[in-house]
Amino acid sequence: MKINIIYIFATILLAITLKAQTEKLTSHVNPFIGTGAIVGSPLSGNNYPGATVPFGMVQLSPDTRNIPDWGVASGYNYNDTTIAGFSHTHLSGTGVAEFFDVLVMPFTGDIIKEDAGTNPYQSAFLHKDEIAKPGYYKVDLKDYDVTAELTATTHAGFHKYNFPKNKSAHIIIDLDHSMKKSDWNTRIIASQLSFPNNHTVEGYRIITGWAPMRKVFFHAEFSQPIIKNQVTDNGNLYQNVTIINGTALKAILDFDTANADVLVKVGISATSVENARFNVQAEIPAWDFNATVNAADTAWEKELSKIKIEGTPDQKTIFYTALYHTFIQPNQISDVNGDYPSADFTTKNSAKPYYSTFSLWDTYRAAHPLYTLLQPERSADFINSMLLHYKAFGYLPIWQLWGQENYCMIGNHSISVITDAVLKGLPGIDAHAAYEAVKNSSLLEHPGSPFGIWEQYGYIPENLKSQSVSLTLEMAYDDWCVAQMAKKLDKAEDYNRFLKRSQFYKNLYDKQIGFFRAKDDKKQWIDPFDPLKYGANGGYPFTEGNGWQYFWYVPQDVKGLIGLVGGNKAFTQKLDTFFTLEDKPQEVNDNASGFIGQYAHGNEPSHHIAYLYNYAGQPWKTQQYVSEILNKMYNTTSSGYAGNDDCGELSSWYIFSAMGFYPVNPASSIYVIGTPALKKATIQISELKSFTVIAKNASAKNVYIQSAKLNGKAYTKTYITQQDIVKGGVLEFTMGGAPNKKWGTGADDRPENIIYN
Amino acid sequence: MKINIIYIFATILLAITLKAQTEKLTSHVNPFIGTGAIVGSPLSGNNYPGATVPFGMVQLSPDTRNIPDWGVASGYNYNDTTIAGFSHTHLSGTGVAEFFDVLVMPFTGDIIKEDAGTNPYQSAFLHKDEIAKPGYYKVDLKDYDVTAELTATTHAGFHKYNFPKNKSAHIIIDLDHSMKKSDWNTRIIASQLSFPNNHTVEGYRIITGWAPMRKVFFHAEFSQPIIKNQVTDNGNLYQNVTIINGTALKAILDFDTANADVLVKVGISATSVENARFNVQAEIPAWDFNATVNAADTAWEKELSKIKIEGTPDQKTIFYTALYHTFIQPNQISDVNGDYPSADFTTKNSAKPYYSTFSLWDTYRAAHPLYTLLQPERSADFINSMLLHYKAFGYLPIWQLWGQENYCMIGNHSISVITDAVLKGLPGIDAHAAYEAVKNSSLLEHPGSPFGIWEQYGYIPENLKSQSVSLTLEMAYDDWCVAQMAKKLDKAEDYNRFLKRSQFYKNLYDKQIGFFRAKDDKKQWIDPFDPLKYGANGGYPFTEGNGWQYFWYVPQDVKGLIGLVGGNKAFTQKLDTFFTLEDKPQEVNDNASGFIGQYAHGNEPSHHIAYLYNYAGQPWKTQQYVSEILNKMYNTTSSGYAGNDDCGELSSWYIFSAMGFYPVNPASSIYVIGTPALKKATIQISELKSFTVIAKNASAKNVYIQSAKLNGKAYTKTYITQQDIVKGGVLEFTMGGAPNKKWGTGADDRPENIIYN
Repeated sequence: MKINIIYIFATILLAITLKAQTEKLTSHVNPFIGTGAIVGSPLSGNNYPGATVPFGMVQLSPDTRNIPDWGVASGYNYNDTTIAGFSHTHLSGTGVAEFFDVLVMPFTGDIIKEDAGTNPYQSAFLHKDEIAKPGYYKVDLKDYDVTAELTATTHAGFHKYNFPKNKSAHIIIDLDHSMKKSDWNTRIIASQLSFPNNHTVEGYRIITGWAPMRKVFFHAEFSQPIIKNQVTDNGNLYQNVTIINGTALKAILDFDTANADVLVKVGISATSVENARFNVQAEIPAWDFNATVNAADTAWEKELSKIKIEGTPDQKTIFYTALYHTFIQPNQISDVNGDYPSADFTTKNSAKPYYSTFSLWDTYRAAHPLYTLLQPERSADFINSMLLHYKAFGYLPIWQLWGQENYCMIGNHSISVITDAVLKGLPGIDAHAAYEAVKNSSLLEHPGSPFGIWEQYGYIPENLKSQSVSLTLEMAYDDWCVAQMAKKLDKAEDYNRFLKRSQFYKNLYDKQIGFFRAKDDKKQWIDPFDPLKYGANGGYPFTEGNGWQYFWYVPQDVKGLIGLVGGNKAFTQKLDTFFTLEDKPQEVNDNASGFIGQYAHGNEPSHHIAYLYNYAGQPWKTQQYVSEILNKMYNTTSSGYAGNDDCGELSSWYIFSAMGFYPVNPASSIYVIGTPALKKATIQISELKSFTVIAKNASAKNVYIQSAKLNGKAYTKTYITQQDIVKGGVLEFTMGGAPNKKWGTGADDRPENIIYN
Repeated sequence: MKINIIYIFATILLAITLKAQTEKLTSHVNPFIGTGAIVGSPLSGNNYPGATVPFGMVQLSPDTRNIPDWGVASGYNYNDTTIAGFSHTHLSGTGVAEFFDVLVMPFTGDIIKEDAGTNPYQSAFLHKDEIAKPGYYKVDLKDYDVTAELTATTHAGFHKYNFPKNKSAHIIIDLDHSMKKSDWNTRIIASQLSFPNNHTVEGYRIITGWAPMRKVFFHAEFSQPIIKNQVTDNGNLYQNVTIINGTALKAILDFDTANADVLVKVGISATSVENARFNVQAEIPAWDFNATVNAADTAWEKELSKIKIEGTPDQKTIFYTALYHTFIQPNQISDVNGDYPSADFTTKNSAKPYYSTFSLWDTYRAAHPLYTLLQPERSADFINSMLLHYKAFGYLPIWQLWGQENYCMIGNHSISVITDAVLKGLPGIDAHAAYEAVKNSSLLEHPGSPFGIWEQYGYIPENLKSQSVSLTLEMAYDDWCVAQMAKKLDKAEDYNRFLKRSQFYKNLYDKQIGFFRAKDDKKQWIDPFDPLKYGANGGYPFTEGNGWQYFWYVPQDVKGLIGLVGGNKAFTQKLDTFFTLEDKPQEVNDNASGFIGQYAHGNEPSHHIAYLYNYAGQPWKTQQYVSEILNKMYNTTSSGYAGNDDCGELSSWYIFSAMGFYPVNPASSIYVIGTPALKKATIQISELKSFTVIAKNASAKNVYIQSAKLNGKAYTKTYITQQDIVKGGVLEFTMGGAPNKKWGTGADDRPENIIYN
């Protein structure tokens, strides 16, 4: 028996090893995708090319501007030609710039008397001298003839700088580098640099900005002795100090590089210098840079191997880069010893990793459902982190950053994430504790969540709370989630209360014009109404979208929505108009891009809409438009995304859609079938179980499903369940160049029959 | 043997008890002294009348303005006629407003729809309806017919509100109340209110202001159930919430007061809500308001009993109020369990109390020397707190607030405090660790302390660092302290280095004009120089004073100063001019007040000057001017101080001077004799040992020392040592109405012979 088990494991290991030798999935990742602005658009994907490990705290990446603002929120813009330095924390794909902590920059030559607010040490660079792959980044800094290489662990960055021989070598550590100070009241409240010995620099900064108050502690070890230090702080100069406190600290360190590279290991912590030190010493005990590069690569290879695909080289590049971007966050911000910065501004300890960076208005849609399939254990940790946040803060996170709430965007979509995970039965989540958090977060009024007027009016009156139409629609969806959890836990009264609330969306439907539109607290429609007019983040009933885009936001009750417009025909006609109406008003805002008619793939409100044809018996149109989006809105260039990747949300859309399905209702355990673009995709459910989607004859032209089989049996449903996937099996499509207008059109084949009953 | 000991203790106890019955020292304290502006001056003493215990964290006191600014830095101005509420933390006598945490205000009647930034619930009050005594405050709030009583423990405030029967009773808890938001970048970064049950409110605020980043946690328990709550936050209204986060939180609580008072116990912590809860539950376990009032009174009685005096009723009032003000701070900011907010923005734990509020530019002069006599154990705790600050921050505190450095004023005068305590041999201080901190803080450049140019130029050039003359003089003094510690610890090299630096003051003496004045980095005098012109806190060579006042700042080497001006005669003539020259330029700044000629008792730079006549053989002039200051600059009204009390510094001057001596050089263990104003003063050195100063024939007219005896032996020295005092004994003066121009004039009688050798 013992021998048998060993034999089985050995065989598995051998199989894994052989597979790894034949195809390195990390080789398909191109971290430059999403790093460069589309010409004529402010959107760049806002990804960064630097080094990070899956779900790590540290993202060690070049910043191409001294003062990043929202236009270069990841710190790096592919169109830029200079590098200001390498900072340790970044956000991937957000529309707001934040982090950029502990900037490190090597340079040579004279030290320039610094002017406040500028960094005279930035260097030109060329893309031809750059290499970026998962967990590794390299660039030549032209001004100094320095080659910089970066790699990372969960809590630490590892720098390798090759200086030219016999030139004066310096490294600057800049604690002042941050998002533009005038944005979000950004201010460094306090910071410290200390030099406990000639190989070490430690310190921290306390900074207020998009996150209310971040503490960032670090411990940096150098492979070469620091010969001299000088620190500037708001025009003051300190030479060879052992410790200094200030608010704009920059240390210039001198090295003797007659013979060697200078390597720097930097541990980061949100709780203390001691923990930063322990983090880096635990994760990078030696000076073996390549070993850390290899470990990062292995970590990525392991995560990327959750899905194996067959497809064109470009498809592989887009797909694995998307998977890479999806696995960059949420970020573990607890230390190796479990200390983490609690939402109530104290330090707490957790035996399990504590995660942050929850861009939930974006990621509840596709990224979190994808995590339930590919990262079930981490999904539980994400949710348990949200529950700890709830315990300290009173309600679940909305947009959680460095462990803190910033209230960005609308709704309470952690409710969707938690409901989804609980209904899918993910292990490691206390369903009753989760329900308490979900329910309380749906009853307790808090910023952006006016539940009093919600229950009083049955909608949000725009004159009482702006973004009212978007709020009404999204709150109704969240309430549906609460109802489903209540149902699962046999809480009938709660179920009825929240199910009723989930129908409030109907109260803002104007039958006369066929749109959701704003009312005031007198129940009067607010005039004028233009369904093409965009709102941003306040002062208008729609959030980062217009009336056309938000019309479709009833994922919990598409059947009801179809009923409102008068049936399937009217519904599909309206969809046809939506995807073809090119009129755009002047004020299309920065968040709208990637257009097909009124559909804007560059932002989340549109993301589920192409899949809605299935609900009304025209799945071939879903196939048509999903295929068009897959082909038009993603590519392998630095402009590879149609808009901000939003912490992996645009990436997750691609991953699902390219495999052939998408979670229109993200908490329903149901995926709506679109059009598989990959010849084959195998999701590794567990070591011995997988789910494979095969698309016979799939090609750029053959985007229409002709027929399907699930585990060998004919399959006509236009959706597939989580259960179908996680029990393993094969879903085989046969594709063709012309629509099969019969497949999937039966009344029983439509997704709403299973989702909403 | 056993019986004997018991007998002795019983006798002592009986004696103490009898004494307490005969004279209640707390009855002499008038907390309204220093609370009201002198007409025509912005200075008010800046004391507050509220409830606090000795060295406690909590100061529960009425705030007479909604938005306190520097003009009402203690929160209370005796000239005001309304009370905005009762907040839990205050500074006593500072020139900057800060704290005012967790404002509580009872009111009745309708709840007014609040306008942002205003508090519509303030109430009129009359001084006739006020009572203030140590640990207790009472006022009638006219607008609401509510009687408010307050008392406190170290970490908690205890409120008792008597509401009129059958009126709607409310209590507001205001977390937005703070110093004026436009001052010091004050901003509430985050705050939370929670209502875990109907008797409890908890929460915190994170605020940046004069202290870079304070966390203030609280736990409030109510004797009556909270019937209803409503919370506002920047115009948002939340009703009956269980928890809410925001940045301008104000909760209005409703009570049924048909039959009873509403009592509120509020624990405060700088580290966590849990600790705030534990603090109040440990210190106020019951609902017995009077018990807490009595405990506070007992605590004050114990501390005030450190000195027993005989004198006029006014003398007793001024003296014990001064002693009260001196014992208000430094404040213990560690929790009952020892947690404290470390200077590096982490939470640490200390077995001994951790103290904060070190207004050192003020208090190193007289308050800290006084603590060495009256609070030797706490003195050691103060210094050990400074050493923990040093450990976390790299250098000793300059102005330490809520555990944090705010760099207010100049110099590093914790060095003086530490040197004084170590040289006096106070137990509980590790002299070697203390010396390391003192030395490193004197070598490591840090904000305000440019030691590089100090050693390079031998003075501070004004064009490199402003306030250069004051800095040069004060740094030279601090360096003398370091030298004395080095000497004590047999560090000859250090001794020589710092002794040399302590003489740098001479490098700014201009013989031509007989003043210290500024040079630039080319060693050129900076023109024009006007010894009457005032500087404030930057942009001028003098700090909160003028050339006349700073001329005398060489406490470490008065002999050297006398030498610079050409001997005793020239020195005393210059002193005569100083005390009689009435010319004041227009720009006399806000810190200068309480004038006798150029002498300004309202601010610290002048404080030692009247004692300098002793050094040059004219002690009767010291007696004359000290007597004049004692009589003119202190009284029993709300305008009882000539300027800001500065955390007890003006008070400490009075205590020392009224007893007859003052620490001109605060780290010398030497007190210079002035003129005893009290008939008798007994300092309790220990349970069985005391030191008594008797002034026979002392009166308002008899201010001149005719003769003196120490322990029965004739005494002609114009100083007395710490050793003389702490070994116990009697110093007896005979006073008269005319100067005895012989007493104390011998060369050996002068203080510098013992201080500087």
